[in-house]
Amino acid sequence: MTTAAATSYGDLFDRMRRTSPLVQCITNYVAMNFAANVLLAAGASPAMVHAPEEAGEFARLAGALTINIGTISPYWLTGMREAAKAANDSGKPWVLDPVAHFATAFRRKATEELLALHPTVIRGNASEIMALSGMANSGRGVDSGDTVDSAQASASMLAKQTRAVIAVTGAVDFVTNGQRAARIEGGSAWMPKITAMGCALTCLIGALTAAASKDPFVATVGALAGFAVAGTQAAQQATGPGSFAWRFIDALAALDGAMLQAQAKIAFV
Amino acid sequence: MTTAAATSYGDLFDRMRRTSPLVQCITNYVAMNFAANVLLAAGASPAMVHAPEEAGEFARLAGALTINIGTISPYWLTGMREAAKAANDSGKPWVLDPVAHFATAFRRKATEELLALHPTVIRGNASEIMALSGMANSGRGVDSGDTVDSAQASASMLAKQTRAVIAVTGAVDFVTNGQRAARIEGGSAWMPKITAMGCALTCLIGALTAAASKDPFVATVGALAGFAVAGTQAAQQATGPGSFAWRFIDALAALDGAMLQAQAKIAFV
Amino acid sequence: MTTAAATSYGDLFDRMRRTSPLVQCITNYVAMNFAANVLLAAGASPAMVHAPEEAGEFARLAGALTINIGTISPYWLTGMREAAKAANDSGKPWVLDPVAHFATAFRRKATEELLALHPTVIRGNASEIMALSGMANSGRGVDSGDTVDSAQASASMLAKQTRAVIAVTGAVDFVTNGQRAARIEGGSAWMPKITAMGCALTCLIGALTAAASKDPFVATVGALAGFAVAGTQAAQQATGPGSFAWRFIDALAALDGAMLQAQAKIAFV
Repeated sequence: MTTAAATSYGDLFDRMRRTSPLVQCITNYVAMNFAANVLLAAGASPAMVHAPEEAGEFARLAGALTINIGTISPYWLTGMREAAKAANDSGKPWVLDPVAHFATAFRRKATEELLALHPTVIRGNASEIMALSGMANSGRGVDSGDTVDSAQASASMLAKQTRAVIAVTGAVDFVTNGQRAARIEGGSAWMPKITAMGCALTCLIGALTAAASKDPFVATVGALAGFAVAGTQAAQQATGPGSFAWRFIDALAALDGAMLQAQAKIAFV
Repeated sequence: MTTAAATSYGDLFDRMRRTSPLVQCITNYVAMNFAANVLLAAGASPAMVHAPEEAGEFARLAGALTINIGTISPYWLTGMREAAKAANDSGKPWVLDPVAHFATAFRRKATEELLALHPTVIRGNASEIMALSGMANSGRGVDSGDTVDSAQASASMLAKQTRAVIAVTGAVDFVTNGQRAARIEGGSAWMPKITAMGCALTCLIGALTAAASKDPFVATVGALAGFAVAGTQAAQQATGPGSFAWRFIDALAALDGAMLQAQAKIAFV
Repeated sequence: MTTAAATSYGDLFDRMRRTSPLVQCITNYVAMNFAANVLLAAGASPAMVHAPEEAGEFARLAGALTINIGTISPYWLTGMREAAKAANDSGKPWVLDPVAHFATAFRRKATEELLALHPTVIRGNASEIMALSGMANSGRGVDSGDTVDSAQASASMLAKQTRAVIAVTGAVDFVTNGQRAARIEGGSAWMPKITAMGCALTCLIGALTAAASKDPFVATVGALAGFAVAGTQAAQQATGPGSFAWRFIDALAALDGAMLQAQAKIAFV
């Protein structure tokens, strides 16, 4: 079972690269450029379209949608809602990244509204996932103050509540859909030192769910594994976060299914 | 004639670098940082000023204006209109980049309104230019599904309709003002793998039209040739899109008129 | 006195890195990604939160606030005011970066409103600081047309008028609080060729004032010295602005208090 499932990540990654899914990313201003470059390097086709006047119409054209509240405002929230509804109506997967949702009342309320639109996948750091499940946490600003281990119970509970795949990312990642769960190792200590790494990962989850819309759990694990493998490779020659960032893009562009298959460290738990 | 015209690209590039024109770029959120760095590397002075409250006033100060609808919303469209009108009123060239204008009704209407304000130059990929001229095309999201060759007839027709210089960019670029036409070779296969390359090129066309406002055809060819030469150079040592991007900036910063003159592959057709 | 004060920059930088202050940056679209990466490399925790619906609430959580008007609009200005008021109410330092404030009426008025909210530190290029003090200047767009030397008198006058620390940055930086003054040498000629360098520096000033809220003069000098030292190091191997940018991030990430202490060129005047 584990082996069979593991085999599929490489195939899925290759299929994503071959089909180059159109991914609508409604993400924050900080992340847009880096996230678009990550998707292009991985072989997907990113489109940053957020205005309520067109976000829903565009979501019907795209293979998947990702929503990140990092620099949210009411106007953008309206666009996010329109896009999420259209994704649901047209059977497209969508991924929610509730950045620092616990930090302000506005952000909490926006996240509640988006959760009510049934995201297919939710990705966050440990503090964000713990707070979503109602647990006390040590988050501060956009950074996690908690470990992924401490968020596993929250993630499992949240998966059952929301029927979404929950991805908690950090030094080791944890993914669950309430029935299956996996831990992904790899990456580099430079990754939290580069802004928008998590936001870009959310977009890559979107690309892989577009390529495997029937199995968002596998798609999410595949995206996290891709980031971990590319991150490990990039770290081998990086001399700081600046050189890590472009080496990471190069590593992601060179990644294929066979390499992902051979190098990913995924443990099903 | 060809030789004489070709000689002027190097001079024009040097003049642009020497005079460092102020270029107002109303571009998308994804492109802003990269486009500003491209203009600085090329020797121009970029200013991203979009608010309707000041966009028109600023356009009167600038040497040229560029408008890109990549992440458009109604508020930004108002600023674009104000700036384009002010550019027209004060005799400044302006460049339109109608990103994925065929994708949604909102985007189509915005593009119609901007076209009615008589851009000096229009730059797009093959699908965008074909769609502008009313032809069927294979565009999807922000990526072209058509070749530059297949868009040449559309470009010529559009040049006659709009009296604008039309630039179709891709593996080989095509530029025409309805009377003259040129094809520019060079660049690198990494270029479409880096987000905002086309958007940044639109801004560089703005910088060169500011330096040669009487001849936007020559200015456009010069900008495309500059990108092609810098792209060819950057590709020599790049190991992926991440390393290509910063090497491209370095190559553009090192480019001068003599190098452009010697290395550009321009064919007048 | 000079030696004692100079000793404290290294300690202050180490304290900032150790405590990783949460810095709310309301900055322009062009700068957001680079500024966030600069803060992460330096050890601070950046958060880009601008919406009026939450900017004030967030400012009470943050250690410092920075406001940059580069791509301002009325909606963002409202958020800036809310955040600045909340910073004042909760005793947090805040830094103003009045980008090209002289260029349009809208920008001038916005800057007047923000100045009335008593920034702790104001950072600008020479033309911006001269214009703030009412002096004639040669600014054009976002670039300075004046030297830092020519802005020293303006800076001193402005420091007395506003009771803010005034930082004029350029080839050599000048900082004064009206009583004390310092000049900081170093950096690289590539720095003005990379967009958002000044905007990112404003954010780093925020991080250091968060770590030394009682002495914003020392904090400002420390931030400028950190940029100058990292810039000098990055320039040693850079071959253009593209390679400079990532080497600068690497150099900043490797910087510690002892290196800053040993390499900073600060003259108290």
